[in-house]
Amino acid sequence: MTPQVIQRWIDYIGNHDPAVLDELLAEDAVFYSPAVFTPQQGRAKTATYLNAAAKVFGGTDFRYVEQWYGENSAILEFTATLDGIVVDGIDMIHWDADGRIVSFKVMIRPLKGLQAVIPRMAELLAG
Amino acid sequence: MTPQVIQRWIDYIGNHDPAVLDELLAEDAVFYSPAVFTPQQGRAKTATYLNAAAKVFGGTDFRYVEQWYGENSAILEFTATLDGIVVDGIDMIHWDADGRIVSFKVMIRPLKGLQAVIPRMAELLAG
Repeated sequence: MTPQVIQRWIDYIGNHDPAVLDELLAEDAVFYSPAVFTPQQGRAKTATYLNAAAKVFGGTDFRYVEQWYGENSAILEFTATLDGIVVDGIDMIHWDADGRIVSFKVMIRPLKGLQAVIPRMAELLAG
Repeated sequence: MTPQVIQRWIDYIGNHDPAVLDELLAEDAVFYSPAVFTPQQGRAKTATYLNAAAKVFGGTDFRYVEQWYGENSAILEFTATLDGIVVDGIDMIHWDADGRIVSFKVMIRPLKGLQAVIPRMAELLAG
């Protein structure tokens, strides 16, 4: 029952293959960060943020714990632990008729969890 | 198609009637704040937080913009503006076989939005 685009996303989380991610993202994909209001526009920027997130959570106990599906969208709730800090969040994913992701929004709770993620993302995005 | 429990919740957001909220919450309801990790246990504490949130967002342009439904759960995405700061969040609601809310989790982005909500909630919860 898992939509193919979501299964491919979950596979990407497992293998971190940037080529798989590029294939998954629409050219006009937009990334909405949990930290900053301004959206990141386009496939390249969206991929940069998602690759960084995959690196931040790679090697942690990151896992999806619950899913909700709409016609062309999904909510995936995840949990992970970063140096003892619990991160509880959601990925809100919308896709187009071709099964490509057009919008990827992340929200994270609690404040300490978000504060644990922000500097780790910033370091990778600056690198 | 909106589950009755969610329609009653949306009605509560409109009328702020604490008696309606009490009726909606299971005795062992748990509230998961966007700010703090530790859950708030029980109907009374959950109601206190939800009443405070309803007050914080009452009189703003708060509105639900998208919904996802599971068998006994829903995700409601909302947006609001607090003194010019955009708040984008989700309510993650689970209910029991009697249609009473057993779990209410909130996540908010971006960081500035969360930072706008926290002191307003704290002021009401202290009062």
